[in-house]
Amino acid sequence: MKVTVNRKAHFNAAHRLYNPAWNDEQNFTVFGKCSNPHYHGHNYELIVSVAGEVDPETGFVMNLDLLRKIIEEEIEDYLDHKNLNIEVEEFKNLNPTAENIVVLIWNKIRNKLASNLDLKVTLYETPRNFVEYSGQ
Amino acid sequence: MKVTVNRKAHFNAAHRLYNPAWNDEQNFTVFGKCSNPHYHGHNYELIVSVAGEVDPETGFVMNLDLLRKIIEEEIEDYLDHKNLNIEVEEFKNLNPTAENIVVLIWNKIRNKLASNLDLKVTLYETPRNFVEYSGQ
Amino acid sequence: MKVTVNRKAHFNAAHRLYNPAWNDEQNFTVFGKCSNPHYHGHNYELIVSVAGEVDPETGFVMNLDLLRKIIEEEIEDYLDHKNLNIEVEEFKNLNPTAENIVVLIWNKIRNKLASNLDLKVTLYETPRNFVEYSGQ
Amino acid sequence: MKVTVNRKAHFNAAHRLYNPAWNDEQNFTVFGKCSNPHYHGHNYELIVSVAGEVDPETGFVMNLDLLRKIIEEEIEDYLDHKNLNIEVEEFKNLNPTAENIVVLIWNKIRNKLASNLDLKVTLYETPRNFVEYSGQ
Amino acid sequence: MKVTVNRKAHFNAAHRLYNPAWNDEQNFTVFGKCSNPHYHGHNYELIVSVAGEVDPETGFVMNLDLLRKIIEEEIEDYLDHKNLNIEVEEFKNLNPTAENIVVLIWNKIRNKLASNLDLKVTLYETPRNFVEYSGQ
Amino acid sequence: MKVTVNRKAHFNAAHRLYNPAWNDEQNFTVFGKCSNPHYHGHNYELIVSVAGEVDPETGFVMNLDLLRKIIEEEIEDYLDHKNLNIEVEEFKNLNPTAENIVVLIWNKIRNKLASNLDLKVTLYETPRNFVEYSGQ
Repeated sequence: MKVTVNRKAHFNAAHRLYNPAWNDEQNFTVFGKCSNPHYHGHNYELIVSVAGEVDPETGFVMNLDLLRKIIEEEIEDYLDHKNLNIEVEEFKNLNPTAENIVVLIWNKIRNKLASNLDLKVTLYETPRNFVEYSGQ
Repeated sequence: MKVTVNRKAHFNAAHRLYNPAWNDEQNFTVFGKCSNPHYHGHNYELIVSVAGEVDPETGFVMNLDLLRKIIEEEIEDYLDHKNLNIEVEEFKNLNPTAENIVVLIWNKIRNKLASNLDLKVTLYETPRNFVEYSGQ
Repeated sequence: MKVTVNRKAHFNAAHRLYNPAWNDEQNFTVFGKCSNPHYHGHNYELIVSVAGEVDPETGFVMNLDLLRKIIEEEIEDYLDHKNLNIEVEEFKNLNPTAENIVVLIWNKIRNKLASNLDLKVTLYETPRNFVEYSGQ
Repeated sequence: MKVTVNRKAHFNAAHRLYNPAWNDEQNFTVFGKCSNPHYHGHNYELIVSVAGEVDPETGFVMNLDLLRKIIEEEIEDYLDHKNLNIEVEEFKNLNPTAENIVVLIWNKIRNKLASNLDLKVTLYETPRNFVEYSGQ
Repeated sequence: MKVTVNRKAHFNAAHRLYNPAWNDEQNFTVFGKCSNPHYHGHNYELIVSVAGEVDPETGFVMNLDLLRKIIEEEIEDYLDHKNLNIEVEEFKNLNPTAENIVVLIWNKIRNKLASNLDLKVTLYETPRNFVEYSGQ
Repeated sequence: MKVTVNRKAHFNAAHRLYNPAWNDEQNFTVFGKCSNPHYHGHNYELIVSVAGEVDPETGFVMNLDLLRKIIEEEIEDYLDHKNLNIEVEEFKNLNPTAENIVVLIWNKIRNKLASNLDLKVTLYETPRNFVEYSGQ
């Protein structure tokens, strides 16, 4: 009896899309306004989904208060109100697209979860664009 | 050609989280404010998802008006404006966590659906916390 | 130059609608399922709106972090995960309808705001029913 | 490392549900008000989900601006502000249920996507009823 | 102590925008795709807002169940799944723009409300376009 | 017969909150993480509300397609994917708080509207914080 529990969170950050191996014109051709060297930003909305067996003692897949703390410490403290390109180690040599951000978030939460739990992360970059990653 | 059709519904209920095998302190440690003996409550929002072949005569997987009636009779009439711990048979000896509620809802709807249809139920306990169950 | 700033918050609570001067039948006639003596509950979503001049030094009508703390201390700590009829002083002799709750919230926040600021409170009892009060 | 990227879009259209092999009474029995011969309509909201490997050069599964153009040319230009029964070729002999519309949309977008990408389409006929199709 | 209570409702309808005093070219210049003679349609979402004194006996401005019935009988039964241009008397000689629809709805509900209550109606034609009318 | 028409729009931008007359410590005390010198960002969601008489010829307060173009040219082209502090003239010496941004937007749209129309602008900085300005 496998149930998925989901919790929403959010953070705000600045970024630009940019490949340092390309010149400015190539960057603008591929990334358009998103390559603005002065940065732009987003309210990132996050859904963290954890699937597992329901514990008969608690009726929980996992305590959502523990999940809330993992998200706070691993993701919000790390990314909220940051410039992703300048201040986040992993994006110094990696383009902070929604795809690359969602994989980073998945990896950081995966490290803190019990191994018998499955994890999926959904990341809204805007209310109209979002990405999903489940580690496969 | 398998399509999934989804219908939303909702009910309001009171509950408390509580394991009768534990003392009050243990209950508070695990369930926090949710173990308040005077109860608290939620607007539960429900998404019922039914997957199956599209009938060439109707263009429907199933008539959503029939699904609406099943949800009304099996779920809304049974849970709406109820105290889950006191008034719902299944929760007299089972903790009414979102996980246990979504499994109850899935079982009750499953019993009323044709066997060639797949069922998944999503239950929002709050706009920020939700659970999913598909019978596996 | 008067701007309105708005902040959302939320709390979960149990209640029943009930007039002690009436018998059970009268209560059921007027309040229906909402008069269930075992209680039901809601996720209350709150919008607190404060209007005033923009301070030229900060660019703020008021610091939203201060408003967040006022809402947390005055409203969330007071109402969240409570049984409104039993545990909230004001509702021991007052029916906890959305109308009476929004007036209580408005009064408690009004007491903590500078007198040159205007206040309006919007309270969602469900995603489909909500009330507003601005002290007039 | 397979990530899913999602983009929302929308169109407005009129339709009626109707099986020409049946008489009016049969149509009304099955489709109710939806068989009104004068038509009714919907704001269709669309989520197009494309899954694939993240390109290490761009950090993209696919350029969402290209996906936006595909949706605009294939779906919005074709269906927006149209009477589906009268003006859309495929529905001249096919009932324009949400199920049949979502399959049409999936087929039209599938034709324009690289073959190594997976596609799923979600179509909201109303905020409360929606369907999903992933080509299986 | 004046509180506003709000209730949401919805209906689906087909319409076209059209001024019979103009030729087709003029209609297309002003109304664009919305003048399509084969009609298009919308999910209209409605918020009905009623302001008045809180009754000390009930704690209600008005019983929302009564308001629900008024909306159902006056608006949903009258407009849902209809072709507004053909089937709604008032729009036989009046262009069914969102502005004209919201005034019609306001007038029909106003007739059924006690005169000491204030009324405002908000009508979403799409999730991005909406209109408001309060009888002034 | 005065009706309000509303249209939603959106833009993404980077900013920091900062008063150049203060030292870094004072800025951090008042603005917290929002004063990060490397910037952070938001998806700003906008509601532009225009009130006026309904034109009997068109049934419109104003043509929403014209309003869409005004918002696009005056606001989206000016603010979208920009660093507000560096790239927007008005914020070179003015703190880009939501309050100051909403007043800027109101002024720019006001200049393009007929004088008999009333204007109100609502700006969401996040889904939880928003501001309103109507020129008073």
